This record gives sequence, structure tokens and C-alpha cells, in this order.
Amino acid sequence: MTEAIDHTVRGSWTPAGAARSPLPAHALRWLRARTGLVGATTPAAPASVLAVPDSALPEGARAALADVVDESNVLLDREARLGRTGGLSYVDLVRRRGGAELAVPDAVVLPESPTQVQRVLEVCVEHDVAVVPFGGGTSVVGGVTALRGDKKAVVALDLAQLDRLVSVDPVSRIAVLQAGVRAPDAERLLGAHGLTLGHFPQSFERATVGGFAATRSAGQASSGYGRFEDMVEGLRLATPAGEWRLGVAPASAAGPDLRHLVLGSEGTLGVITEVALRVRPAPTVRRYEGFVLDGWERGVAAVRALAQQRELADVTRLSDVDETEVSVALSGGLRTKALRGYLNLRGVSRPCLLVLGWEAEDGRELAWRRDAALRIVHTFSPVTLGSAAGESWRHNRFAGPRQRDALLDVGVCVETLETATTWSALPALWASVRGALVDALTTPGRRPVVMCHISHAYETGASLYFTAIAPRDPDDPVGQWQRAKTAACRAIAGSGGTPVGTITHHHAVGTDHRPWLAGEIGDLGADVLAAVKRRLDPTGILNPGKLIPGPERPDQDQPIG
Amino acid sequence: MTEAIDHTVRGSWTPAGAARSPLPAHALRWLRARTGLVGATTPAAPASVLAVPDSALPEGARAALADVVDESNVLLDREARLGRTGGLSYVDLVRRRGGAELAVPDAVVLPESPTQVQRVLEVCVEHDVAVVPFGGGTSVVGGVTALRGDKKAVVALDLAQLDRLVSVDPVSRIAVLQAGVRAPDAERLLGAHGLTLGHFPQSFERATVGGFAATRSAGQASSGYGRFEDMVEGLRLATPAGEWRLGVAPASAAGPDLRHLVLGSEGTLGVITEVALRVRPAPTVRRYEGFVLDGWERGVAAVRALAQQRELADVTRLSDVDETEVSVALSGGLRTKALRGYLNLRGVSRPCLLVLGWEAEDGRELAWRRDAALRIVHTFSPVTLGSAAGESWRHNRFAGPRQRDALLDVGVCVETLETATTWSALPALWASVRGALVDALTTPGRRPVVMCHISHAYETGASLYFTAIAPRDPDDPVGQWQRAKTAACRAIAGSGGTPVGTITHHHAVGTDHRPWLAGEIGDLGADVLAAVKRRLDPTGILNPGKLIPGPERPDQDQPIG
Repeated sequence: MTEAIDHTVRGSWTPAGAARSPLPAHALRWLRARTGLVGATTPAAPASVLAVPDSALPEGARAALADVVDESNVLLDREARLGRTGGLSYVDLVRRRGGAELAVPDAVVLPESPTQVQRVLEVCVEHDVAVVPFGGGTSVVGGVTALRGDKKAVVALDLAQLDRLVSVDPVSRIAVLQAGVRAPDAERLLGAHGLTLGHFPQSFERATVGGFAATRSAGQASSGYGRFEDMVEGLRLATPAGEWRLGVAPASAAGPDLRHLVLGSEGTLGVITEVALRVRPAPTVRRYEGFVLDGWERGVAAVRALAQQRELADVTRLSDVDETEVSVALSGGLRTKALRGYLNLRGVSRPCLLVLGWEAEDGRELAWRRDAALRIVHTFSPVTLGSAAGESWRHNRFAGPRQRDALLDVGVCVETLETATTWSALPALWASVRGALVDALTTPGRRPVVMCHISHAYETGASLYFTAIAPRDPDDPVGQWQRAKTAACRAIAGSGGTPVGTITHHHAVGTDHRPWLAGEIGDLGADVLAAVKRRLDPTGILNPGKLIPGPERPDQDQPIG
Repeated sequence: MTEAIDHTVRGSWTPAGAARSPLPAHALRWLRARTGLVGATTPAAPASVLAVPDSALPEGARAALADVVDESNVLLDREARLGRTGGLSYVDLVRRRGGAELAVPDAVVLPESPTQVQRVLEVCVEHDVAVVPFGGGTSVVGGVTALRGDKKAVVALDLAQLDRLVSVDPVSRIAVLQAGVRAPDAERLLGAHGLTLGHFPQSFERATVGGFAATRSAGQASSGYGRFEDMVEGLRLATPAGEWRLGVAPASAAGPDLRHLVLGSEGTLGVITEVALRVRPAPTVRRYEGFVLDGWERGVAAVRALAQQRELADVTRLSDVDETEVSVALSGGLRTKALRGYLNLRGVSRPCLLVLGWEAEDGRELAWRRDAALRIVHTFSPVTLGSAAGESWRHNRFAGPRQRDALLDVGVCVETLETATTWSALPALWASVRGALVDALTTPGRRPVVMCHISHAYETGASLYFTAIAPRDPDDPVGQWQRAKTAACRAIAGSGGTPVGTITHHHAVGTDHRPWLAGEIGDLGADVLAAVKRRLDPTGILNPGKLIPGPERPDQDQPIG
């Protein structure tokens, strides 16, 4: 029975896979029926029509930068500058579709070494030029928007040429990677030594090691390999005040752990140039499986039990009823019918998909861990979908970012946001954020799909990752989303001064969450960050307008309704 | 065979147990033969002869403090003040044995709530009085020495009355404890809910939750339960700049994790008043076992394999040949003979004791984890001593601090120091620190015992914990140890600007490691800490002279030879 079902659901049946470009006809039909989407398509404007202001980089600054990195590594052309204009949020994509004014950097600087990064910062201090560190450009919170603050110009400091594996210590299992190494290249470089980093966020295909560190990234397999911050042994940071190296031992009581000031600093305190990382032997066996649990509450209880008994699979991912419904609907045709029939037969009225994935060095280790986890899962009466459903998810795990352009083309507003909280606060927070998004995106004739999953679980709580899909408001597409986002952030920030959850579990702060940060870390926390920044970046060239609440905080912090 | 041996080694056969007060005759005989210790005994001077200066607390400050905490909670008497004079380092003990000038606080203040702590700080700012936060008083690095810095007076802020379990969230498994809760009381309070913190440092019997957080404590079961910093969900901190609360979710990407600035801040940035902690169900089964491996290198390889395959027991502790020899010698009489004979029979020429201890919620979980670990250990050809040897260690796990007075009575210099480094650097660091201690403590007629164990292992490295025992230099007991300590610190700090290991894995910085801190976190790191302190404690009342390198750093940091 299980085998048969495995077969029917093989292939791209998660939203990620099903909706990849070009959008399958059945997916578009389903979207139209479900949301009230009309037939209009709105393809992106070609880059050639976008308004790109002339570079404001003074010639003296350009020449000084060229002295450091060579003429060939200071790019002023339109294409290079447009290529580092903002990240990959929905609002970024909408703006790049034409119409809105773009924050285009005045130049792109491509240093070749940590020493060159250090010297670039010195030149930029001298010439009063803002610096936006740029890795994979995958920020979805405005983290790489080329804001110049009060500076004369702004350059994108693209770390693409810091692409080396610096050293491997196989005994200690520590690898030093330069900050510009992209995740697939990190896996390739480490794979030659039989090692893996094990960090697989959805941004995997483009994101860099430095970006992971700067944003406290969490990967899809973080239950097994840890969040990125858990892997960091040491950091090398270029700052306007000089170079800073941190991390000499796996653990220490030598005062506050200052690595945690650099991790998550989003380019505002310095530019990460090298990261020493704990690595592991590359897995030789893997197994991904799908299960359906009846009801969100039961699914949450199952994931909590796995986390609190410390038997989480490396990948542990629970979809709520809406996300599961979308997955089933988008698998299409016979697959959808077969799965619905099967679940109906099994008496499941509120199906929630649970994907579990294990990776291990040998089959016995995998079998042990899987047995322990399944013993827990089976106490929650799951319907077993087998490994095809799990493999299907794995196959499409990085597809999300690729499909959004296709959705935008057909007139959809699609965006995600995430938070984390304790287990006891999770049910209410799930309901309040979901409700806020549904309310904000519902208008006459337009019905959003708001769905959620847990992808990161801990002993004390878990993340909640929401995806919202709605017919786009053609007159105010940016405002449409911003109102929904503000409503969701308000639900997370709570009332009465105590946040219900964190404003971001793994997307970082950037510009989008900056107004909410002081509510989470306190005014004292914001002041402490500002004090650290003044010491490391006295003239404020580094990534202005990101992360650290500005002096205008008391007013700016009042989110508009 | 194993059972027979178990029986012969039952009881107190580790140095901790064997040497507990009063020192057994055979232990004293062994010490004399091994180290050249002569027969003189030097009992401690009675407290009545110690020189205690009059309190310098101005009456206005005293009255203002009494307004906040009540007259009864501002103690000026000799006994109360002497009781908060320094911590428990060897040098502290020697000084309190008479002769040296003591840093006695001018008063002891005992607030009853976080709010009172906040108001005490405000009073102390107003009256220019230094504040030394005082928990269990177990610092071995000068962390609670009553230094007044440039202030008029200094008070010990004793948190003993902040002794409440504030709340328990059994679903999220989070408990909020006030900072003054001692570890045994924490276990008792949590035990009533079926929960445990699982934090068992050697200071367990006296140390407090706030002290654990302020010093980034590591417990004997940290392989299983995590270091203290891993358990901290949230913190409440009183600072001269106001109250600061941190921690809203199990994980977050909302900028740098500022909890890690408070953890390890040693009372220099604020006074921790509450800690929200991840707790676990109290274990119902436990098993501790002893093994002997032939050679330190083989033992290290076994612990590394356990760590890197993530199969460490909750307690994993490897003694080097010297520490094992001392353990065997001090077990005494027939036990010593039987164990030596057994190891000889098994062809073990360089015995290293490995203690593994598991605690679990049920027997099956324990059996699984034990099986996985033993499968690894058995590839290193261990001699199995059985559970009696393990239980003996567990029974005496907190005895170390209690036995030192007995050793001091008979004329011994006894002190410990610790570090941590990567697996690849560990063998050389072990040899260099050991060599430095042996050289510094060897004089004509005096031969030290220098022994070491690994008690905390990680995937990328481990701690090294050294104990040195030598006949005391009666003319300069403090200088004798300080020279040895400096030599060891130099070995750890390395030459050429890159530390070989951390200056402290779990003893914290205090006064003793302060000159070495900038070598580890860089001058920029020291400046960053100072910048944070200026924001939170602008007048510098909090724990002066501890942790943060002072403005006099460039000169002061030159350790004398």
C-alpha cells in the first residue's frame, strides 16, 4: 500500500517543485480558483528600461580603490551596478520589474584578499564612501540594499573573489573558508577532503559562507548539523578600526563570547573575510520520508516530542493543513486524487505533512537514529507516505527562490516571513500571524493562501515559517505586502512590551526588521550595538541603515499602520 | 574478573575522595615520598587574628542602601565582611591563613528582589561606591575580590536572598530562576517538578545560577546537558543604565546574540538577577563506569572519537598517566596493590583512567547510548574496571574543594588551572603546560606532582585541566604559585601573537587572567568590551579590576616573568 502511494506522489508535489518556472497549467488553474486571481500577466520589464542614476563615486575615491584592488576590480558599468541592486525579497523583485526608483550602488569593488578588504575600508573611510558588503545577494530583508546614509557615495563590496578554502585540519575537523565561497563551492571544496559543512538553507545555490555568518543563517538540516553560528569556530573581520580575529578554542570562559557580536552583525560592524568552521565527514547514506499527521496540534506535539527527546531527524519539517493542502493540490491530476483518496480512506481529516530526513556516515547509525525517531512519531498515529514523498521534498528543497518570477509573471504577490517562539506560545502565535496575514491580504475578490511550516525545532520551542500568496494589487503592489508584513510583525512583537516571538528566526534584520529590533533587544541593546559600532566603524561607512536602530529610533520605531 | 576488580577499587580511590579532610595517613606518606614534602604542618590562623580594616562606607551611602534593602540587610560586622573576602583560589586560601593584607568589602548588602538590586546600583552610582556581585563565592580567579578601583568604598552585593524559582513552563521546558539560587537548591526546586538543570561543576555545593551565567560555567555533565551558556534562554540584568532583559525565542537571527555579551561578563556590565533556563526531565537511571586505556595518546584518541561521532557520555573524563597514578596510589593499601597487579597482568604500562557516565529518562535510552559509546571505546583496547570505579568517581565528584584545607594544613601548595584547544594542538599544549608547571615548581628537594585530565570534549577539541601539588615555599607561598601560573599562561598564550589555547575554559577571567585577555580577544575585543561597559556602567562602579583590561592595558599586560 505504502509503495503504491509512494509511486503516485513521486516527483514534484511540494509547492516548491510544482510551481517552478514555467508554472504548470494545473497550478495556475488551482491558484485562480483558490485566490480569485484574474488572467492578466505582468512580465518583468527588461533591465534596459530600468532607470539607473549616474555613479556618484568621486574620481579620487575611484582611483584610490583601483590602487588597492586594480582597475579591473572597480566596476562602474550599468550591468555590474544593477546586478548588486538589492536582494531577493518580493519587494526587491517588484521594484526591479520596473517603475520604482532603485538603490543602485555607485560602484562594485571586487577585492581579492582579506588584506585588500581591509585596505578598501581604509580608502572608503578616507573618502567618506559607504560600503555594502555583498555575498550571494540573497537577502530577503533589505540587507544588501545600496543605501548611502550620510555618505557621498556607496559601493557594493562584492566578496566573490574571496573564494578559497584556506586550510583544513582533518584531526580537529576545522576548515577555514574565505567569506565569498558560495555554499555549493564550499561543499565541493570540502567534499574533496571527504567533508561537508552540512548547511543547506533555501538560498544554498547562491549564498556565501560570509553571508551565513553575517546573518546567523539556519539551514534545512540545522537539526542535525546545527545553525550556522553553532559551526563557527573563528572569524576574521576587516573593520575601519583594524583587523579583528576571534576564536581560539572550541569553548572558552574568557569573558563574553565576542564571536556572537560578529555573527549576525550584517556588515554593520565589519566585513567578515574568513570563517573557521566545524566540518563533518560527508554522509554516505541518506533517507528522507514523508508522513501525514491528522491536525496541526498533533503534528506540533510530534515535533516537540522529537526535539525534547533529542531525536530530531537532520531535516524535520512539518506543514500545517493549508501548506499540506497546497502541496497535494499542486502535485496535480492523478497524484492529487490518489493522495486525497488514500488520506480519506485512512480517516485523516486535517492532514499535515511531516518530512523527516536523515544523513549519516553509515547505514547502522542512520538505522539507529531513524528507529528512535519513528518510535516517537508512531505514537502520534501517522500515515506513512514512504521515501518517495521525502525524496520529492529533498529534490525540490532549493526550488523556492527560482519559482517566484513565474508567480510574479502571472500577477501573484508571494512572500515569506518567519519567527520562532517557545512551544507553549507557539499555537497562539501561529494563529495570530496567520490571522494577521489573511486579514491584511483579503480584499473584495481577492483571497490569500496563507500557509506555514515548522522547519527548525529546539527543546524549548520552534520556528514558524509562513508563505503568503495572493492576487497582486496592481496599483500598489509594494504597499499591499508592506501592510501585511507590518500586521504580521505586530502579532510577533505583541502588545505590552514583551515580544511573543523573535522578529526573525533566520532571515536577519536588514532594513525590513530594523524598526522592530529595539522591541526585542531593548533600547539598551540597541544602544550597546551602537556603542560597539562607534568603536569599530567610527565614521559609519559600513552598511548604513541596516540592523542597528538609528538615533532617530524613538520616532522611526513607530510602525505605521 | 571485572566484578572482582570492581570490588577491590570500591570506595574513595580518586584523589578527590582519597585526600578529603582529614588526609588519610597513607596519602600523606605517599605525598611525602613523591614530592619531598617535610613534616611541618601549618594550620590556618583563626579568623580572629586576621587584620580587617574599618569599613570605609560613608554614612550617607549606608543610610541610602538601608532605605532600599532595610537596615537588616546592610551588614557592616567583621564576620559578614570577612565572609565575602575573595574566593576559593589557592592564593585566596593562603591569604586568609594570615599574614597578607585582605581585600575586605566595606559592607555586605543583601537585596531581596531584582528591583532592589536595580535600586542598590542607583544608590551606589550616586554615592560613588563600587559593587562586587557575590553569589557562591567560589571564584578561583579573583572574580569576587573586593577591589574598590577608584571608588570611595566597595560593597559585596550578596544575592543569597534572590533564591526563588520564579516560574516553570513544563511544555517548553523552561524554568526561570533568580540569580542567587544555589545549584543544589535549583535541583531541589526543579526536582519538585520532575525536572533537572543538569549542571554539576565541582563548585556545585555552593555556586549559584547567576554565577554560572556570569562566568560561562561548564559542568561535569556538560557533554550531555551542555555548557551553562547553552541552557540560557533569557537573562534579566540590573545595570546602572537601567534594567535589561534579553531572550525571546530558542533561536533568532535578530542581530548579534547579546545574551553572549552578558554571559561571561563577570559582574562588570551588570548584575544578573534572573535566568531563564532550558531544563530536562530528571533522570531516573544512571550508570557510571571506569576504563583504563594504555597511554595518554590512545586515551585522547578515544575521547576524540566519542566526541566526533557524537557519542560522548554525559560525563566523559580522561586522566593522564600521572593523574591515574595518583588515583591508584591514593586508593590505598590492598586496593592499590590489586589494581596495579591487574593492570600489570593485562599488559598496561601507561594506564589512563577513563570515566564514562550516562544519565537517562529510561533504561532503554541509556542502554542505546552506552552501547554506541562502548562500541567506539572498545576499538581502543580498554581494560574495563566496571561500575564501582565509575560510581566512586561520581560519589567524590564535588570533594575537591573540601580537601584543600587539609592539604594546606600539611604544607602543600595545591592549585588547578585549565585551558581548551583544538584536537590537533592538544598534545603539544598538554606537554608545554605540564612542562612549564613542573619546571616552575621544581626546586632542590621539592618535586611537584603535575597531573591533567580532559573533562570537556567537543567535536573540534577539548579542555585540559591541570592539578599541581608541590611542597609549599613557606617564605613566599603566593609568589611560588604565581610564577608557576605565569609560566603555564605563557605556554597557553604562545609566542607570535596567536594563542595556542584559551586562557580559561571554565574558570573565567577575574583578576588572574585579566592580563592575558587582550592576547586572546585582541586589543579591539578589549576596546569593544570597554565601550559596552561605558554604555551600561558609565561611572565604573561594577566589579572594578575584573575581566576588562583597563586603560593601563599596554603596560599592565606585560606579565612579569
